[in-house]
Amino acid sequence: MPLITPRTYDPREFKALTFHDAVPRFRDGTDTPRAYLERCIQTIQEREPVVKAFVVLNEEGARAAADASTARWKAGRALSPIDGMPIAIKDLLETKDMPTQLGCEAARGNFPKRDNAGVWAVRQAGAVVFGKTVTAELGGSQPGPTTNPFDPACTPGGSSSGSAAAVAARMVPAALGTQVGGSIIRPAAFCGNVALKPTQGAINRGERQATSMSSHGVHAGCIEDVWQVAIEIASRAGGDRGAPGLFGPTTTPAATQPQRLIVLETSGWPALDSASRAAFESLLERLRGAGISLLRRGDDRYVESLEVAIANASAISNAITGWENRWYQRNMLDEHPDGLSARAQAALARAEAMSLDDYRAALGSRAAAQQRHAALAPLADAIIMLSCPGPAPLWPGDRPGEPLAPRPTGDSVFNLPSSMLFAPAVTMPLLGVGGMPVGVQLMGQQQEDARMIGLARWMLSQVPPVVVR
Amino acid sequence: MPLITPRTYDPREFKALTFHDAVPRFRDGTDTPRAYLERCIQTIQEREPVVKAFVVLNEEGARAAADASTARWKAGRALSPIDGMPIAIKDLLETKDMPTQLGCEAARGNFPKRDNAGVWAVRQAGAVVFGKTVTAELGGSQPGPTTNPFDPACTPGGSSSGSAAAVAARMVPAALGTQVGGSIIRPAAFCGNVALKPTQGAINRGERQATSMSSHGVHAGCIEDVWQVAIEIASRAGGDRGAPGLFGPTTTPAATQPQRLIVLETSGWPALDSASRAAFESLLERLRGAGISLLRRGDDRYVESLEVAIANASAISNAITGWENRWYQRNMLDEHPDGLSARAQAALARAEAMSLDDYRAALGSRAAAQQRHAALAPLADAIIMLSCPGPAPLWPGDRPGEPLAPRPTGDSVFNLPSSMLFAPAVTMPLLGVGGMPVGVQLMGQQQEDARMIGLARWMLSQVPPVVVR
Repeated sequence: MPLITPRTYDPREFKALTFHDAVPRFRDGTDTPRAYLERCIQTIQEREPVVKAFVVLNEEGARAAADASTARWKAGRALSPIDGMPIAIKDLLETKDMPTQLGCEAARGNFPKRDNAGVWAVRQAGAVVFGKTVTAELGGSQPGPTTNPFDPACTPGGSSSGSAAAVAARMVPAALGTQVGGSIIRPAAFCGNVALKPTQGAINRGERQATSMSSHGVHAGCIEDVWQVAIEIASRAGGDRGAPGLFGPTTTPAATQPQRLIVLETSGWPALDSASRAAFESLLERLRGAGISLLRRGDDRYVESLEVAIANASAISNAITGWENRWYQRNMLDEHPDGLSARAQAALARAEAMSLDDYRAALGSRAAAQQRHAALAPLADAIIMLSCPGPAPLWPGDRPGEPLAPRPTGDSVFNLPSSMLFAPAVTMPLLGVGGMPVGVQLMGQQQEDARMIGLARWMLSQVPPVVVR
Repeated sequence: MPLITPRTYDPREFKALTFHDAVPRFRDGTDTPRAYLERCIQTIQEREPVVKAFVVLNEEGARAAADASTARWKAGRALSPIDGMPIAIKDLLETKDMPTQLGCEAARGNFPKRDNAGVWAVRQAGAVVFGKTVTAELGGSQPGPTTNPFDPACTPGGSSSGSAAAVAARMVPAALGTQVGGSIIRPAAFCGNVALKPTQGAINRGERQATSMSSHGVHAGCIEDVWQVAIEIASRAGGDRGAPGLFGPTTTPAATQPQRLIVLETSGWPALDSASRAAFESLLERLRGAGISLLRRGDDRYVESLEVAIANASAISNAITGWENRWYQRNMLDEHPDGLSARAQAALARAEAMSLDDYRAALGSRAAAQQRHAALAPLADAIIMLSCPGPAPLWPGDRPGEPLAPRPTGDSVFNLPSSMLFAPAVTMPLLGVGGMPVGVQLMGQQQEDARMIGLARWMLSQVPPVVVR
């Protein structure tokens, strides 16, 4: 098995680990879920010392689950197309057979003996749950130990750091992550994953219904595995309370060529490095070459209105999420006075300075931005934009005595729009910049997850990735 | 202190325990929060052996909190108008200093060391949290041991059984409850409380954001205490994630006479006992006498449309809540195979037979009913309706070998409308039927909580209660 060495990532050559294409071999007996799992464990043994994607592994439980799956495939009674799929779980989601420690000192040793709704659902579908992946503290910005599989000096992104890295390092074909600001799409983009951040509420968050703009989503090596995991969860556990749940077919939607796309620049555009910008513009040129029309802020006043409405996305999102988390985090800090990082405590202090009226104002700004987004529906099939501001930045760690780096897992400026608009986003590994992955995403109207998957499937199969050295 | 003897309740004579009118005496030093608390403890000692409202008391912690409050009032530094108010907490809400056992065998001994958002907020406001009140199992229909303070052979209603009974027995001036179907308004109505079931999301549910139509609310002896507790919580902890939180003034809204009211009958009307119906019609006659016009289903097609839309409220609500709880309850049952009652397991089995499409259909019916309700806004100031189908029924317990009684804590037919419409409801102890309380409620449009409080305040002060023997 070829190991990836630093800064040689090329999206045209990198072969991600996939599962859907192994299923025919489970059927004909030339492969088994148990053998598949053993290959994953082998890769973990080789790469984990540097990548550090996992907090805990349950190899014994995974082997038993893989054996049961092997028997089901042999008997022609597989529970679903993901029966036997090894899946890693972000350590914010409860698992009945492994601790759930939230990347947080205050939750060290925390071990509720129950499954998050998504974990419960993938088990019902026969998947093999066998590890908890590193999360930034409480899904925030204090990083864990995980390194980027394509350069250990760089961040894997966060907060779904371990889920993104485990998929990129070919340790698992798929992993569950969560996003409030940019915690699924950005690490997936830094690590060359395909990933879905669904419509707000489309995948049941289970016990973690804590904030109004957080989602559970899927990282995988290919679009087929992303969709299959998502739809298997939704068909069993539905969406959040009060939400209709993920809509779409029981297998991956067909590839569909878009006719028109809106290009969203966001406030991250001016600070973008020139290589990433050139790579993205080259990709857009290829789309134009395929007959797709592109609409940008200078072309249309509705597009410009959305750009303006999301220009302040960071302040709006931080206010909303800060307020929504402050009671929970204050409780945690009261119980464990040394249990939160300085970074998390600083964020809590900002949130505790807010009033209810500040929160209401931020909700109003978010609702107005959602209206601006909805107004774009007739103009194009989807929005296309970068998934991250260039390749993963270096992360040498905080330096004692110096101010805390503001964004150790990268900037979420390209991710906050889909989060605050409650919109589905699919990131695709279509760019290589300086030997590192850079993702490009499609964003749709609310509930258009399946349509985004179909468009992304077309792009992944028909548009050659762009590589800039 | 006069103890209430069974079946002598008269809403014209019953003196509920109140707090807001004690505050001037805290200011001038003729009373103290500590002395107030001691009177509550005395009442509990006298009545608790029969009423059985509490699961656990923390007298030591309450005395310390009351002493601290006494010192604040003495120093002129009270934290809020509810500083020093003894408040009881339904045992579904987490409290850092008492166990939280959910009325459920599976949660016996459960003791998370943290406060629910509402509990946290009332502590911040200086209130004295000193007991956990009995809840029906998991807020469902399996009753706890609490009896009705006005007749121990009758149910206090549920699921906020202990909160309603503790207020009715003058053990505390106020208590927090929760409602999914009818769990605040019905027990309050059976026990002669004033209570607010707020607009969906108006009071932060904290960790309990589990279902799409559950609310936290307030039971008290008077409308002033109801509002003050609610607004003190909302101003500190806000509403649910994504909701703007309870709107209204920092002290109780002024009494306001309604001009026009819609009378909602619901599908509970035909089965209503004749005495309760006569009492309610007499009350309506008094309102007409005060110059208030009344609109009923026969008078207006929009009103009739809402009646039709809520005729199936029970099936719609059971489907929604059953689906939303099933993953959580399945987890609980997997961990504790003997931890749920037969009644709860039967409900879980029905929920587990549902598909995602069944759930989506119920959501659609609920949304349509909400539209029908919104369309009534220009027609009247509020809806008026019974809060319960007559006085609290007898509850002798399940009989071994016989089928489980379907509604041991009473029928929620008059409560499901406000729950599924996400509408604020205020129940008022305006009827006495056969020596037992029967509540009447006002229901408003979403976010009109403060307006309902003002209308209820007028009715409580200006409309003589009706007594039918």
